[in-house]
Amino acid sequence: MSNDYDIAAFRNLIGPIRCEVNPILVKQKSRDFYWYSPVLKRELEAVTADIVVSPVSEAEVAAVLKAAHKLRIPVTPRGGGTGNYGQAMPLTGGVLLNLIDMNKILTIETGRVVSEPGALIGDIDKATAASGQELRMFPSTRATATIAGFVAGGSGGVGSITWGGLRDFGNVLRLRVMTMEAEPRTLELTGQDLHKAVHAYGTNGVITEVEMPLTARYDWAEVIVGFNTFEGATAYALALAEQDGILKKLVTVVAAPAAQDYFLRHRAMIPAGQSVVLLMIAPHALDAFEAFSRLHKGATILFNSHHAAPEARSGLPPIYELTWNHTTLRGLRVDPSITYLQVRYPDAGAVKRIHDRFRDEMIGHLELIRFNGRIGFAGLPLVRFSTEERLQEMIAEHEAMGAMIFNPHRYTLEEGGMKQTDATQLAFKRETDPEGLLNPGKMIAWEDPNFDFSARKNFLFPGLEARALAAQT
Amino acid sequence: MSNDYDIAAFRNLIGPIRCEVNPILVKQKSRDFYWYSPVLKRELEAVTADIVVSPVSEAEVAAVLKAAHKLRIPVTPRGGGTGNYGQAMPLTGGVLLNLIDMNKILTIETGRVVSEPGALIGDIDKATAASGQELRMFPSTRATATIAGFVAGGSGGVGSITWGGLRDFGNVLRLRVMTMEAEPRTLELTGQDLHKAVHAYGTNGVITEVEMPLTARYDWAEVIVGFNTFEGATAYALALAEQDGILKKLVTVVAAPAAQDYFLRHRAMIPAGQSVVLLMIAPHALDAFEAFSRLHKGATILFNSHHAAPEARSGLPPIYELTWNHTTLRGLRVDPSITYLQVRYPDAGAVKRIHDRFRDEMIGHLELIRFNGRIGFAGLPLVRFSTEERLQEMIAEHEAMGAMIFNPHRYTLEEGGMKQTDATQLAFKRETDPEGLLNPGKMIAWEDPNFDFSARKNFLFPGLEARALAAQT
Repeated sequence: MSNDYDIAAFRNLIGPIRCEVNPILVKQKSRDFYWYSPVLKRELEAVTADIVVSPVSEAEVAAVLKAAHKLRIPVTPRGGGTGNYGQAMPLTGGVLLNLIDMNKILTIETGRVVSEPGALIGDIDKATAASGQELRMFPSTRATATIAGFVAGGSGGVGSITWGGLRDFGNVLRLRVMTMEAEPRTLELTGQDLHKAVHAYGTNGVITEVEMPLTARYDWAEVIVGFNTFEGATAYALALAEQDGILKKLVTVVAAPAAQDYFLRHRAMIPAGQSVVLLMIAPHALDAFEAFSRLHKGATILFNSHHAAPEARSGLPPIYELTWNHTTLRGLRVDPSITYLQVRYPDAGAVKRIHDRFRDEMIGHLELIRFNGRIGFAGLPLVRFSTEERLQEMIAEHEAMGAMIFNPHRYTLEEGGMKQTDATQLAFKRETDPEGLLNPGKMIAWEDPNFDFSARKNFLFPGLEARALAAQT
Repeated sequence: MSNDYDIAAFRNLIGPIRCEVNPILVKQKSRDFYWYSPVLKRELEAVTADIVVSPVSEAEVAAVLKAAHKLRIPVTPRGGGTGNYGQAMPLTGGVLLNLIDMNKILTIETGRVVSEPGALIGDIDKATAASGQELRMFPSTRATATIAGFVAGGSGGVGSITWGGLRDFGNVLRLRVMTMEAEPRTLELTGQDLHKAVHAYGTNGVITEVEMPLTARYDWAEVIVGFNTFEGATAYALALAEQDGILKKLVTVVAAPAAQDYFLRHRAMIPAGQSVVLLMIAPHALDAFEAFSRLHKGATILFNSHHAAPEARSGLPPIYELTWNHTTLRGLRVDPSITYLQVRYPDAGAVKRIHDRFRDEMIGHLELIRFNGRIGFAGLPLVRFSTEERLQEMIAEHEAMGAMIFNPHRYTLEEGGMKQTDATQLAFKRETDPEGLLNPGKMIAWEDPNFDFSARKNFLFPGLEARALAAQT
């Protein structure tokens, strides 16, 4: 793919649709939180689009896609840019399709909300509150993340302790997707078809409308429980997560000394050396939660937002902004050498063995989530980064010890996921983006059908390299 | 305990509180669905109170308890009388404390409802509907069962697939309980203390107020799915139950030919030989449910109330009235030789092995429920009754094959439960009912502290026998 896109012709074709070509602003909109990873930081530093286009309607999206298709300019859809793997970074330039102005919330009914793709997740939760409802799950970037960005680039988050992940049946209800063709079509995806576009990074269609399930909204209590050991915190978190009658939205474990070193506004309440469990508990479950915790030896409730004095609460960020990828962010802000991994542990024993193995080099961070009807351990451990080789070794050791790694230091769907082709998504791309113009470089199966995953070598997208070379000349 | 209660003096003491002494009406109010069990039917046939008292306030309850305590007359609290084990039957006569007129729903807030003990569960669900809420769980006798009766005599029901059982932390929020003393006191139980009175059959206090958690209310779709084998139906039910994103309120499996033979209004829609899975699915989960079911070989959706024509729905009882103890009831109505067991199976393999073992003598009936964070199999298999000895043999064989039996052919807490003393409940009885006047004969630990459970002999309450003898003279 060459870098010589006819941007002038493209602008002519799209007419009055709002766009931006100032290189500084374009580059700003061409990034996400890829810099959490020192590997991606090196690889993607130079990535930028040629133009940012900000449609306000489905008709404008169609006009953009039609024009780009005609001129063979790649198009990378983007929401709030809160991803961590370069999901929405235009590896080989072209059009950055900024969907943040398509943010209308269209209908709210019992159990359902329909919105445009760029609606902020926080805004959806505000709008649905009047009906006593909220989204089942949200990323820790709730305030700035868009709903379609979450569906296309996320996997789960706060709420997954009850509902599982976005890929599970029922956690996305309907997507409207526009194809990248001479005459863009819109397709409605429901049921099994949703798997075609959920977590596909916008490589096989542009999401123009999202229907999500809602659940009962509560004024969740934010709670921090302290433990002398990470193992103790883990055991408590699992036992609490398995209490079916205690309604919760978040169960996170963070090993010492992360809370003390990185949670700057909360650190005063956390004794030295303690690992913590961070929780969101329904108010009407607090009595039961406290009774359960009292029975659990070694658990000390350090903070409960529903009992704390207003002074004690003021200035604190929401507790979910200490969890999921925000944990890493808080580490990075204090210690720029911090990075992370994404892990699925088979059980609490493996959590312990692996964390004992990497003591000092890694700080434990678990997110408990439901997985096929059972509570499972996801992990986003904080890693003290030394070299890329060592990081790779650590990944291999995790795998050798029985854990699954979703590598956050790779920009492709396959390497960040199950290390194999998603045949459903690939087939859908053939149908929706026959020229391969949507978010190029992210789906290995499309770019290099013969890529050998078992060789354990990184995929390098030629378009990224060509673009970088062109930029230097 | 003698049968010579001074009922006349008691009436004098309670003054204008409404009561009934007509023996036919008193006997009517002295029973429950104990006759599901041929054993209890024989043992409890003659049981009747001497007087039914129907207080309308806590002050009246206190007056009744005070008078009965003074005269040493036993008092058995009763709600709707929908239990199956004689929970509310006055084994040795005395006062039947009918709480059905204390039925006010006091407050409804987000996540909580407070009511008097005799409020009907169906009425609570109607009252909370305006706020978009409903109870987490209800028995199949929702229409006629009271909330305190459910808490004191039940263990779970429709909704337990999501929330677990009534004994789990968080599924009852608060109970107000009155003691049986010279000066009755009221105690407020929350958190861990709730275990003192939940499922204690009213042996250690009279519940005068109940606070229960609420959850989001939906217009649940009623669905029937057909399978060629019981094993296939079981596997599908488990897989569906483990779908965290598909919100459901009920997952029941009923083996052939129960649906065809006993579900008289539904039988026309169920092909001969098919076992069925009976479901309540949230409307916004139907798409996902149908997509999931399509992937499951051998599953045929036979009925979906949200797609069925009004003619097809008219005259049908609610689907939950085919499940839990209503399954047994429907069997009994057609074939009076039907009775049942209550089983917890360790896994699907045990379900299959046990049901293969008893083919023809037993018809499989499973209720899937959450249990310590995982989906578990509870069973209420229909048994073609021959003799009490054979029933006992079947129970022993179940236990030998790894299943746990909660014997529904026993009237004591211990024999119907874990076959051991509940020390918490016993200690609470010492505190709340020092004379042992509340619902005598139901707590073995109280009646006979030296009873040897390991001997596997039935407990026979002497008071029941004395009463029966007295009635003959």
